[in-house]
Amino acid sequence: MNLENVLSQIRVVLVRTSHPGNIGAAARAMKTMGLRQLFLVAPKHLPDEVAYARASGADDILDAATIVSSLSEALAQTTLSAAMTARPREWSVAVQSPRLVSPQLFDEAMRAPVALVFGTENSGLTNEEVEQCSFPLMIPTSTEYASLNLGAAVQLLCYEIRLAGLAVEESVVMPGVASLPASVRATHQELEGFYAHLQAAMTHSGFYDPANPRRLLSRVRRLFARTQLEKEEINILRGILRALEQKPD
Amino acid sequence: MNLENVLSQIRVVLVRTSHPGNIGAAARAMKTMGLRQLFLVAPKHLPDEVAYARASGADDILDAATIVSSLSEALAQTTLSAAMTARPREWSVAVQSPRLVSPQLFDEAMRAPVALVFGTENSGLTNEEVEQCSFPLMIPTSTEYASLNLGAAVQLLCYEIRLAGLAVEESVVMPGVASLPASVRATHQELEGFYAHLQAAMTHSGFYDPANPRRLLSRVRRLFARTQLEKEEINILRGILRALEQKPD
Repeated sequence: MNLENVLSQIRVVLVRTSHPGNIGAAARAMKTMGLRQLFLVAPKHLPDEVAYARASGADDILDAATIVSSLSEALAQTTLSAAMTARPREWSVAVQSPRLVSPQLFDEAMRAPVALVFGTENSGLTNEEVEQCSFPLMIPTSTEYASLNLGAAVQLLCYEIRLAGLAVEESVVMPGVASLPASVRATHQELEGFYAHLQAAMTHSGFYDPANPRRLLSRVRRLFARTQLEKEEINILRGILRALEQKPD
Repeated sequence: MNLENVLSQIRVVLVRTSHPGNIGAAARAMKTMGLRQLFLVAPKHLPDEVAYARASGADDILDAATIVSSLSEALAQTTLSAAMTARPREWSVAVQSPRLVSPQLFDEAMRAPVALVFGTENSGLTNEEVEQCSFPLMIPTSTEYASLNLGAAVQLLCYEIRLAGLAVEESVVMPGVASLPASVRATHQELEGFYAHLQAAMTHSGFYDPANPRRLLSRVRRLFARTQLEKEEINILRGILRALEQKPD
């Protein structure tokens, strides 16, 4: 295993960021910890002079940033994604802590792309965006004042991931990344394909009424998000759906 | 133990900071993790509008900041202090990592003030400043790019300390702070008093020539810094010095 190679497979995804300075600060924070892949989802402003000034030498990260219009595009090919949240909302999927989940994120990054997803400075990620990710993640801030700067939150997460990687490097003789088996986890697209299939089947069968949704789709997503579906399981579930769809009325 | 009470006894000391924005970012970073005591040693500019803007609601930390002219003043009463360093220089005292040393810093903060000391944005702390602290501390950054923003470094350290505190809170039934024995460690002033006494004795005896110092005082400091002297040991050492000074020629 090469630590820097694995770290460079981990995406930092900034969603609808308002201030270019924060994009620059995030790039700098990433580079200090060896992360390199920055995705910007519909940023309010593209990286500008302010962003480059704050990046302070991490220009290469900004230059290579991938600009996309939806979170789904930024999550393409990923098999694990953490959604940063500051609010202790009700999530059916357990909220993780950076300290405890970083080893899992690093481990998965040896096999497939993973993502750390950060929302806007003011309001964070929407519920729908959190639900597109594998699990919500909350930094344990003071209960009295939880106003973490975006760049600071990126810094903390990248630091935790790097330390998880250093622990792997120090403690285990790892096989080369090339010789590891491919991830068995479903990718983001495979999951979304399944949800779309399920929704169509639910709608067609009359179980789900798009005009009167009652949070049904959210509840279904959360149920499956908890299980962290594998590729093969998606195939089985979609096979069942297809069989049911074709059954004679 | 009250977590927030202990955290509020931990000083963040910024030495000769150039940019008020970084002072504001440090205040915000501290407050998100429950730290409150900010010391500014000879800042280039006092906290101004830029600092307050970056503090983003952590105004109370800036308002209550203690401005002093020397590091020694900021370390008054502390019994443990960590000096942030980015450069892997040769230190006789072992360089600590934030992850490993934070439990010790938090534990000591239950008994006496402790300090996290950060140097200037460009050149960090001087060797002499590092030697005034109990030990140097280095954040494990990428070897290729170690340019941590000052506010980001403060954020990482405060986070580690808070997590060390949360671990204590969760795992142990702690006695109230008031019922803990006072710290047995020497304070910064007691240590400096001993060094001054030792230097006078060395000079008077002819062993040390101030005109030709040859790093002698630094080596002496490092020797004792490694041992983390207790109050009683300082008394013994100074008693020995006094006895030797008074011996008949």
